[in-house]
Amino acid sequence: MNIDMIRAAAVRLQGHARVTPLLSSPFLDKIAGRRILVKPECLQHTGSFKFRGGWAAVSMLSDAQLMSGVIAYSSGNHAQGVALAAKEHGAPAVIVMPSDAPKIKIDNTRALGAEVILYDRATEDRDEIGTRIANQRGLTLIKPFDEPQVIAGQGTVGLEIAAQAAALGITQAQVAVCCGGGGLSSGIALALAADAPQMQVRTCEPVGFDDVARSLAAGKILANTPSNASICDAIVTTQPGNITYPIMHAHCGAGLAVSDDDCLRAMGLAFERLKIVVEPGGAVALAAALFYPDSFQGDTVIAVTTGGNVDTATFARALDTL
Amino acid sequence: MNIDMIRAAAVRLQGHARVTPLLSSPFLDKIAGRRILVKPECLQHTGSFKFRGGWAAVSMLSDAQLMSGVIAYSSGNHAQGVALAAKEHGAPAVIVMPSDAPKIKIDNTRALGAEVILYDRATEDRDEIGTRIANQRGLTLIKPFDEPQVIAGQGTVGLEIAAQAAALGITQAQVAVCCGGGGLSSGIALALAADAPQMQVRTCEPVGFDDVARSLAAGKILANTPSNASICDAIVTTQPGNITYPIMHAHCGAGLAVSDDDCLRAMGLAFERLKIVVEPGGAVALAAALFYPDSFQGDTVIAVTTGGNVDTATFARALDTL
Repeated sequence: MNIDMIRAAAVRLQGHARVTPLLSSPFLDKIAGRRILVKPECLQHTGSFKFRGGWAAVSMLSDAQLMSGVIAYSSGNHAQGVALAAKEHGAPAVIVMPSDAPKIKIDNTRALGAEVILYDRATEDRDEIGTRIANQRGLTLIKPFDEPQVIAGQGTVGLEIAAQAAALGITQAQVAVCCGGGGLSSGIALALAADAPQMQVRTCEPVGFDDVARSLAAGKILANTPSNASICDAIVTTQPGNITYPIMHAHCGAGLAVSDDDCLRAMGLAFERLKIVVEPGGAVALAAALFYPDSFQGDTVIAVTTGGNVDTATFARALDTL
Repeated sequence: MNIDMIRAAAVRLQGHARVTPLLSSPFLDKIAGRRILVKPECLQHTGSFKFRGGWAAVSMLSDAQLMSGVIAYSSGNHAQGVALAAKEHGAPAVIVMPSDAPKIKIDNTRALGAEVILYDRATEDRDEIGTRIANQRGLTLIKPFDEPQVIAGQGTVGLEIAAQAAALGITQAQVAVCCGGGGLSSGIALALAADAPQMQVRTCEPVGFDDVARSLAAGKILANTPSNASICDAIVTTQPGNITYPIMHAHCGAGLAVSDDDCLRAMGLAFERLKIVVEPGGAVALAAALFYPDSFQGDTVIAVTTGGNVDTATFARALDTL
């Protein structure tokens, strides 16, 4: 896993992934007490950064592999990203999703042409299901985060941040990233280490799912208590990956944990001040940047809003915070 | 009023206005039955394209004019655009706004440092108020649409559309534009005539405020019935401008009129499929593109979503359409 793989992924993504802009608002700067820039990956194809990793991985497959098809397991955003990337490569896709995933994510994955197989998060093991079906049907498994080409694709967000910030005259910043298994955080960290060495990734997780923050503090991989709950469905992973963790340990600052209520407030402010739609798990980093200012250093925080696939009932709760 | 003024405005806006991306969704393409590209000017500074025209006009003023200050009258988006542009130029700003303008627009205009003077839309004349205060205080009036430098600033949207569409291999399209007095529509039309001559602007207005459509059809400037009502507060102007109308007459296709309910539905789909926040008056063009497909020709419609300054109650109505 290295910067050359990220640069190669950026070439493959050119003309396919959307280059998302950097947004800002003087009202958000005032709340945070410093300059806040937002990288709205909710505006990416399929509504999250996951399309980048999906495309980066699928575009590396051989014609024979594409013909057989791909499989992924995901609570929804990786599902849609892989489904669209597979569709655009003419490859069939099977997606294993938890039966309690947001309905919009299940519906969208099906509408993008994928076969969706639902499983019970409480009683079934998605790895086992995924591996079994992959073997039965000869499908290539695209893992959600602990997969070098997926990390390479997500890392292209970091290349864009470095270039777009430099165009604004900014070379020093902390970069707050919503973090599940660490695919995006480790990819961005590698990209910044190469192209913006004075920027540092700060992982942001929901309270109760701060496995990355605790792992970084302990210096070894730790897992979450399985019984915890959060509205941040996109990033309620169990523990950091075996590939992503060492990268984060080498490059990231201390991790942050954010409450669900603060995520809803950040979603409300993103609506009001940036005119973007952010889902709870995609708002963790912005919430940290806005409401936990003492946990950051420096003049500028760049927050990645990683996804926008939220149902109307949850979004209405965010509007109620305004 | 010519293309050179638009290109000069683009130079002045560089590094100040945001280059908004082109968005799309296969789900929207399916609804419309053709490719739909969306230019989300709701993501522009102050939440609407009006910042472009405000900056283009203010940046042409002399130091003496800037020191005295500027004045504008506006239902809210031009107000915020001029207020921020004036603030960033160090110029005081007075904004004359109707007392029934959305509260968020009044609050934001004040928060951007402007002095807001409210008037009663039913009994007072904003032109009279604006001219009187401008004369009393020696302020430079920045008109909302019938002003060459404002049109030049709005026209930079057209330059970006031409370049961004060409990068996608698209040179032929109809460009649906939300239309009030015609500043944005005429600016884009002039830009496209120069840089994408196979693209044509189609003005989109709320039902009851289709003065531009009727004027284009009649070949002369016609006004709306004053008693009409629409939730599209941003574009409920009385009649096209003396400068904007001849440009639209020379370059635009037939105008369209869209119902308030269709605007709410388009706002809901923009939330669901593009993850952007659009206000009613900013959704007219997308509504036309999605729900009035027989009124357009060709494979591709590019819709400009012109603003996102909407209160939560109105946005909740849009979510209810999903």
